[in-house]
Amino acid sequence: MTLPFARRLDNVETSAIRELFKLLGKPGIISFAGGFPDSAMFDVDGLRQASQQALAENPGAALQYGATEGHEPLRAQLAAFMQAKGVQDLAASDLIVTTGSQQALDLLGKTLVDPGDKVLVEGPTFLATIQCFRLYGAQVVGAPIDGEGVQVDRLEALLAEHRPKFIYLIPTFGNPSGALLSLQRRLRILELAVKYRTLIVEDDPYGDLYFDQAPPPSLLALSAQVPGSRELVAYCGSLSKVLSPGLRVGWLAGPAALLAKATMCKQFSDAHTSTFAQATAAAYLTAGRMPATLDEVRRVYARRARTMVEALRRELGDAIAFTPPQGGLFVWARLTGAGGALADAGELARRAIEQGVAFVPGTPFFATDADPASLRLSFATADEDKIREGVARLARALR
Amino acid sequence: MTLPFARRLDNVETSAIRELFKLLGKPGIISFAGGFPDSAMFDVDGLRQASQQALAENPGAALQYGATEGHEPLRAQLAAFMQAKGVQDLAASDLIVTTGSQQALDLLGKTLVDPGDKVLVEGPTFLATIQCFRLYGAQVVGAPIDGEGVQVDRLEALLAEHRPKFIYLIPTFGNPSGALLSLQRRLRILELAVKYRTLIVEDDPYGDLYFDQAPPPSLLALSAQVPGSRELVAYCGSLSKVLSPGLRVGWLAGPAALLAKATMCKQFSDAHTSTFAQATAAAYLTAGRMPATLDEVRRVYARRARTMVEALRRELGDAIAFTPPQGGLFVWARLTGAGGALADAGELARRAIEQGVAFVPGTPFFATDADPASLRLSFATADEDKIREGVARLARALR
Repeated sequence: MTLPFARRLDNVETSAIRELFKLLGKPGIISFAGGFPDSAMFDVDGLRQASQQALAENPGAALQYGATEGHEPLRAQLAAFMQAKGVQDLAASDLIVTTGSQQALDLLGKTLVDPGDKVLVEGPTFLATIQCFRLYGAQVVGAPIDGEGVQVDRLEALLAEHRPKFIYLIPTFGNPSGALLSLQRRLRILELAVKYRTLIVEDDPYGDLYFDQAPPPSLLALSAQVPGSRELVAYCGSLSKVLSPGLRVGWLAGPAALLAKATMCKQFSDAHTSTFAQATAAAYLTAGRMPATLDEVRRVYARRARTMVEALRRELGDAIAFTPPQGGLFVWARLTGAGGALADAGELARRAIEQGVAFVPGTPFFATDADPASLRLSFATADEDKIREGVARLARALR
Repeated sequence: MTLPFARRLDNVETSAIRELFKLLGKPGIISFAGGFPDSAMFDVDGLRQASQQALAENPGAALQYGATEGHEPLRAQLAAFMQAKGVQDLAASDLIVTTGSQQALDLLGKTLVDPGDKVLVEGPTFLATIQCFRLYGAQVVGAPIDGEGVQVDRLEALLAEHRPKFIYLIPTFGNPSGALLSLQRRLRILELAVKYRTLIVEDDPYGDLYFDQAPPPSLLALSAQVPGSRELVAYCGSLSKVLSPGLRVGWLAGPAALLAKATMCKQFSDAHTSTFAQATAAAYLTAGRMPATLDEVRRVYARRARTMVEALRRELGDAIAFTPPQGGLFVWARLTGAGGALADAGELARRAIEQGVAFVPGTPFFATDADPASLRLSFATADEDKIREGVARLARALR
């Protein structure tokens, strides 16, 4: 018998990347395909101490059911973390803890999206965001980016045309683009939010992973400068890229009415995020280890990014075009076809696997108007020798 | 500005119990209102050791992103746990790990429910199940229960009338009913599943909490005896009531096609359940501590249940009617109105708070045809002296 699955599942297609990932098991492959941080950089000692402290101090709180909104000491620590990043008036009650920022996206979909609603995103954007919103029936429309992030004029035209339920952006070192939205564009987007009375969802898992200098303030922080915009910004944060994805600790900050509805939905999604993970994260943040951890991951990823950028220029020359990332985990590039080189990233991905290097072609990251010449390369998990060797293999695949 | 929330939120009402819970902060109150296990019985030492072991053995696996289906060592342990409970042919690949069994319910809703679909449940059933399915647009219809669980003749009549997408049951010491579905009824329900080609969702968080003798096998275990029924049973399990709710470790076992769709939906719900919590649970189960933990919780809850049953009979006499529970956390009762005593459980709840004791009136647990005389009393979290004193206060409130 075929089970009577819901029609919403028809909106989602997941095979594109899965097929490629099946090939990653090949021995000796160098992978630039992942979207995750390097396990070798986790502060295991710090997390061990934090988990022990959580169990020693208040085992009841760490192991019992907890409030759907989140473990209070963690909410307080996360609010302080956000305050230190320029969101000065954010209180603990202005955010809820989510099971990774993926759940924040799911709760936004559940809370806001009616079937047929439009949602604007960057083209390209995080693949799981597109699918998440589509499962709630959204029609997801992409606005093009350039080296400074989303193109605001194009965004406004799409806003006027589609009147979306909300706009979803990863303004700071986004996945997959790695792009950094300029301060000027940030302010213009907040003005557009007010002009069109449209909610902006700012997803910011990478903002702390800057290399040389801190990025412009988040849209949430900047909303203090644009009258009327604060109530139109929802912010998704995460400890996954800076501390540990396995904790599944993210958060959603936003207007009180939105948080109330998201909390109600979360009650029926997973009741609450693991209190054991939350109490561990709270103890870790309280212990003050985060600044040193951030310094270390910034230093290592900056070095790897530089190595990849240099290798790409040296080995691929004008066959590839990209803006060097200023933070995050990714180089986003286009095959130019210069000198008759391959310009189809899907075909290159297949050839690259044969040469022993993997990456993700860019097409699945576009909700609309995919660019088949685009590709995403992660520099986060391979060491510098591997990065150089992987790029050399990529160059062989391209010829 | 009012945010443009999705229409699905209009299907859900959450104020009924929330209003009552606001009163629970009153000092000195004895609470029979909770739906959770006693924190004092958590095996904190065992979980401390398990979490340390998880971080020592493979910190990468405990702290990195993990497979959406779940941490392999945990899936293997959970499959063994199910095999020991009579589901002999269950493999690790026949279940996925969920963020508590609440998430299993959410994934079933997302995977199966189209707006307007009917879902049959017990009347009464778990409140968060009703709301969870309604958020996906389900029309939830209750089938009446008696001392032996759901009434199968009535269930069949409703099946024939409504042709539901699936039937959701908590056959073993259910919340709130505490009822134990008899073996004969279990087999008949599996036959109905085959006859009507309807999926059965068996939610079983309480089945291990039996007092004197083990309950009949789960519907999933019994499906081996009813040809054609195995592919029509989905099973939700949980470590929350037997080990720790704060881990948020549950699981969903079921037909491969259902698990594939649920896994896809989970990918966009929270990517995966906390690997730290999963690795901790796996280490705990591997260490072999669960049988002793179960013995202890069974012993303590059995004593508390007996104490509550005796006190209710002594103090309330024929003003209250109930079937003594054979397991679980709850006494489900009806006010009879005998001798002119109060028969409205909502009114009694308000008077009881004044007397210093809290419980939950039964009305919100009914999807349809609520019984205003019903109430749920938890014996799980108060010690025996408190149980006796609380019931005495309840008797004063009733007069």
